[in-house]
Amino acid sequence: MGHEDHPQDEHRVSRETHDMLENNIINGNDDEEEKMNHKKIEEEEIESVEKIFEKQYLPGWRNQVTMRAIVVSFGMSILFSFIVMKFNLTTGIIPSLNVSAGLLGFFFVKTWTKLLEKSGMLKQPFTRQENTVIQTCVVASSGVAFSGGFGGYLFGMSERIAIQSGDNNGFKNPSLGWIIGFLFVVSFLGLFSVVPLRKIMIIDFKLTYPSGTATALLINSFHTPTGAKLAKKQIKVLGKFFSLSFLWGFFQWFYTAKDDCGFEQFPSLGLKAYENRFYFDFSATYIGAGMICPYIVNISVLIGGILSWGLMWPLINNRKGDWYSADLPSSSMNGLQGYKVFIAIAMILGDGLYNFIKVIFRTLSALSTHLQERQLLNTLPVHSEEAQSSSLSFDDQRRTQMFLKDQIPTWFATAGYVAIAAISITTLPHIFPQLKWYYIVVIYIFAPVLAFCNAYGCGLTDWSLASTYGKLAIFTIGAWAGASHGGVIAGLAACGVMMNIVSTASDLTQDFKTGYLTLASPRSMFVSQLIGTAMGCVISPCVFWLFLKAFSDLGQPTSQYPAPYAAIYRSMAVLGVEGFSSLPDNCLTLCYVFFGAAMLINLVKDHLVKPSVARFIPIPMAMAIPFYIGPYFAIDMCVGSLILFVWEKVNKTKARAFGCAVASGLICGDGLWTLPESILGVAGVKPPICMKFLSRATNDQVDTFLATLS
Amino acid sequence: MGHEDHPQDEHRVSRETHDMLENNIINGNDDEEEKMNHKKIEEEEIESVEKIFEKQYLPGWRNQVTMRAIVVSFGMSILFSFIVMKFNLTTGIIPSLNVSAGLLGFFFVKTWTKLLEKSGMLKQPFTRQENTVIQTCVVASSGVAFSGGFGGYLFGMSERIAIQSGDNNGFKNPSLGWIIGFLFVVSFLGLFSVVPLRKIMIIDFKLTYPSGTATALLINSFHTPTGAKLAKKQIKVLGKFFSLSFLWGFFQWFYTAKDDCGFEQFPSLGLKAYENRFYFDFSATYIGAGMICPYIVNISVLIGGILSWGLMWPLINNRKGDWYSADLPSSSMNGLQGYKVFIAIAMILGDGLYNFIKVIFRTLSALSTHLQERQLLNTLPVHSEEAQSSSLSFDDQRRTQMFLKDQIPTWFATAGYVAIAAISITTLPHIFPQLKWYYIVVIYIFAPVLAFCNAYGCGLTDWSLASTYGKLAIFTIGAWAGASHGGVIAGLAACGVMMNIVSTASDLTQDFKTGYLTLASPRSMFVSQLIGTAMGCVISPCVFWLFLKAFSDLGQPTSQYPAPYAAIYRSMAVLGVEGFSSLPDNCLTLCYVFFGAAMLINLVKDHLVKPSVARFIPIPMAMAIPFYIGPYFAIDMCVGSLILFVWEKVNKTKARAFGCAVASGLICGDGLWTLPESILGVAGVKPPICMKFLSRATNDQVDTFLATLS
Repeated sequence: MGHEDHPQDEHRVSRETHDMLENNIINGNDDEEEKMNHKKIEEEEIESVEKIFEKQYLPGWRNQVTMRAIVVSFGMSILFSFIVMKFNLTTGIIPSLNVSAGLLGFFFVKTWTKLLEKSGMLKQPFTRQENTVIQTCVVASSGVAFSGGFGGYLFGMSERIAIQSGDNNGFKNPSLGWIIGFLFVVSFLGLFSVVPLRKIMIIDFKLTYPSGTATALLINSFHTPTGAKLAKKQIKVLGKFFSLSFLWGFFQWFYTAKDDCGFEQFPSLGLKAYENRFYFDFSATYIGAGMICPYIVNISVLIGGILSWGLMWPLINNRKGDWYSADLPSSSMNGLQGYKVFIAIAMILGDGLYNFIKVIFRTLSALSTHLQERQLLNTLPVHSEEAQSSSLSFDDQRRTQMFLKDQIPTWFATAGYVAIAAISITTLPHIFPQLKWYYIVVIYIFAPVLAFCNAYGCGLTDWSLASTYGKLAIFTIGAWAGASHGGVIAGLAACGVMMNIVSTASDLTQDFKTGYLTLASPRSMFVSQLIGTAMGCVISPCVFWLFLKAFSDLGQPTSQYPAPYAAIYRSMAVLGVEGFSSLPDNCLTLCYVFFGAAMLINLVKDHLVKPSVARFIPIPMAMAIPFYIGPYFAIDMCVGSLILFVWEKVNKTKARAFGCAVASGLICGDGLWTLPESILGVAGVKPPICMKFLSRATNDQVDTFLATLS
Repeated sequence: MGHEDHPQDEHRVSRETHDMLENNIINGNDDEEEKMNHKKIEEEEIESVEKIFEKQYLPGWRNQVTMRAIVVSFGMSILFSFIVMKFNLTTGIIPSLNVSAGLLGFFFVKTWTKLLEKSGMLKQPFTRQENTVIQTCVVASSGVAFSGGFGGYLFGMSERIAIQSGDNNGFKNPSLGWIIGFLFVVSFLGLFSVVPLRKIMIIDFKLTYPSGTATALLINSFHTPTGAKLAKKQIKVLGKFFSLSFLWGFFQWFYTAKDDCGFEQFPSLGLKAYENRFYFDFSATYIGAGMICPYIVNISVLIGGILSWGLMWPLINNRKGDWYSADLPSSSMNGLQGYKVFIAIAMILGDGLYNFIKVIFRTLSALSTHLQERQLLNTLPVHSEEAQSSSLSFDDQRRTQMFLKDQIPTWFATAGYVAIAAISITTLPHIFPQLKWYYIVVIYIFAPVLAFCNAYGCGLTDWSLASTYGKLAIFTIGAWAGASHGGVIAGLAACGVMMNIVSTASDLTQDFKTGYLTLASPRSMFVSQLIGTAMGCVISPCVFWLFLKAFSDLGQPTSQYPAPYAAIYRSMAVLGVEGFSSLPDNCLTLCYVFFGAAMLINLVKDHLVKPSVARFIPIPMAMAIPFYIGPYFAIDMCVGSLILFVWEKVNKTKARAFGCAVASGLICGDGLWTLPESILGVAGVKPPICMKFLSRATNDQVDTFLATLS
């Protein structure tokens, strides 16, 4: 997922890239022969990656987007949509699933081609270009599960969240029909907006796109002999933990007759800690996520949890009746819940604003440098360009050649953009009457610029600011519409329109980079992104609908699926429309403090301390997440970190080579279990047993009660 | 434990011996240099073990029984008494703890001597003789925890078991004072009875004593350089699983506010299966036990469990009101409980009788062969003995020389036996008025013969028949005394007297063999056995008393500590005194069937099929154990088996080298946790949380009830 502006995006890829590079040096195996092979390949690789692949078959773009690739992508899209949806609806933290998608895609097509090869029906070998197409398609499709806002703006419009929020600014309940329609009219614009700029960003500016580069390195490594050997081992490890995690999910299910039952409610640190949401909830997903996210993210989340649920909320709770009325229901936004949500929003906005300014500033300054260089280049005589081209390495030459071979005409991109924008402008006001057509026109005029900014910034920093642009839309369009004209719904819908454009734009440019490095044609990248997005527009709403039907308490703060960002997005929209008047006493002051603190922490991290110290400074955005839902998932993630940490101490080579495979297995297995789980839920099959946790005193009373029953 | 006549004793050692021998060939490490070392040592070892040790310091017997050895033994005795007591009171199955004791003993003294060496205060290096002394002392002391009958005859006398059993044949409640006195007057007789015969059994007959030999091999291997290296690794593994298992026990404790709470009552296979005691109870002890016991024992226990709780008890339960009165309480011996106990007894007696006959027959035939050979030898001219001696290997020569160096005079042994017998005859009737002095005299006249038989049989087959001799005493003395003169208590007390003699006798001879193979003096073996037994006579009753005070429901069939053999022993005594009249309908017929089946299975196993098939035939005695308490522990043990099985498939070398260390760690860690657990119990500190398992319907009712509370 290269499209969430959660802080781990900034950090995680550095670890991944590092691992990918390392994978070519280490491989967790003492086999002598293999080591020798390794050395040879390594040496060659330092010379040129493309030399290794030179004699391999390079298919045309139509043979890159094969039928089998689309079928495999479709299956994997369903799995990853479940996984992303689970993350969306539990905490909103989405770890990078690129490596998992890469490994699984490789595994499926490899198995497929092996079977065909044995039956003698194989027409075309499995190439890294095809692998890139699958990767692109799956990431695009599961990307919609994120940018569709099912855990955020879209679910924030629902009646359920409106009631929780306690405002009367209208609602729009999710239903399969309008969600699919909405996604189809807004998700493709981003693609068309960046197509004409691809050569500038990839070839001229040589932007790094760390995630895209890491993915390409991974795919390239899979298709070298040593890489394939390691990949096979990694897949075996992934498969093992996948099954374990799936079975663990299945086992847990039996003991969750009700919401307060089962391992998810295990008071592993005692009942008192449990009341403040400090407990280890045995979630394989978050243990895996903890292994993928950098240590500092996990630590930040834990610190945020301790600060909020361990310190601030109990203190504020003591002020009940003083700061806010004691008669309010616990879910009221005018009570303690309000402090939780708005302080979290303040921190998220503070961090977001700081990084927005930072990225825009870096984008603009880098852009001006690049443009100056380009101008300089154009004024030079013609032969100098040839000279420059010959000074390129073999890899760069070959890659550039392939990248420029298949063109997508600019007129096609422009026509596509205008056509879709026109459809969108006429359709959207029918879905959201509050979203007037002229709001959409304004968005679509600015969108290409913002999409370019985001794609460019992402190329520099790997940080997609999609949700920050979305929040911008909430506040601007919300304020423009005003409370009396359904500003809240208009703001949330505008957020959706904006997020989808900028997010798909940066995704596509990432994929172009991956394609550039794996010699996949830009045309096949574009087509597979189109197919993937289309798949996502159908799969994601269906998955969301399944969750909605299966888990009747979706969105309740204490449930299995609290969907924290739904309430946060809605509260932001309300804030944008109504202003600060509705906040409880002292809440605004606290918000200012945390908004400032978030900015300050970032400033200190970036400028005032040495990088060696900076990496120990927590990330404000990560700290804000547990403010609302509690720190239990932070404990899971820290357990994941701890496992990886100990593993690295014991056997660094193995931990590096297989850590990601273990984490992916844990996440994917648990994610896949949510499929049968939600189907069982929809079918009305309920678990037979409740594993309940009672204090000794309560237990005695219950025993007495049970004795009267029998 | 070389003193329980459970079938695994017959089998387990073969695995252990095998492992010990293997350990010198494999070591789970690919280090080239080490492999070379290994090969060298291995070659030497085939030549002579004693050559390797020739230049090592060999202390006199007074320097073998050092103060530090006694201190370490004392600490370990407490730990192992807890472990054995836990096994006694949960299922009565006691896996071999020799390797654990060996590893831990080596670890403690090695640490001790290292510390002293660093501080420059080390006066004497740690020798294998000293190691043997510790081993002997710990096994002797924890042996009392078994032969003291705390889970069997001794607790069977208590009022609690008498009430459960429903007979009115009197009771004697356990109390610290009389138990210690009783143990002191009966536990030393066995030692004196076999001392004069040691040369015959060890040197002349060259009996194998598989357990004693395995222990000696282990100790010898620890003191060679490669062995020490492996031992260090094994100890590390043991330590890891020891801590994990201890912490797991600690964690579990928090959730057991009442008996029906916690992981021990986890309906892991569903509520219906749980009702029939089929569930996995997360017990580290029995997972470890399953890893130590041979596969066939675990499978037998499981088959027995399925046969009884899965098939027979539900069927018999359907006959309620027909075969037995439906009004009886569920614990009544005239109802279903009676079938459970008496069918188990029938099977235990059938198996016991078969093996008794078999061992006695083999003992007598081997004895007569030996004696004939000896006579033949004595009639030959003198120089032939020299010739024979020179034909001995270097190892045998040196071992024989050392074994014969320190003598224990026969007059000392005889005087000791007579003195203790006299004290015992005058004291015991004061403790048990039902046990007349002339019963004891009769026992003590026959005892030396039986002790010799047991020691000899154990040397041939590794099977100590102590509890079979005990059962013999129950029936004979019980019938002699008669119901009206407290025959039940007299029988149980006689059982204790008999068991202690024969069990310590075979223990001591095992230790002589170990001493022979490690060049430890017979005198130091005898002294350490004396010290160990004395420790056991104090430690075991105290540990039992702690359990009794801490777990108030000790002995209840559904509790954490059902002590199954207590009820079984008492029922046997009642049967011996009252005859079959008290059995419910058809129970006697079923008993005959199972008694016959046990004999038949053994017969088929031994004589009618090939050994390759015989190893798949279950063991009747192991099958009988779950009849009374249910098959839940069988599931734990099978999980242990499965873990070992998979491990052996994945990495046979490592599984062989470390399987036993893992198992020991699991058993010892969990065993040590019972120490703080029972102290907490005595101190009245109760766990704060109940982890309860309710069906969905019940849970709904409980939730409604809880809602009315708040």
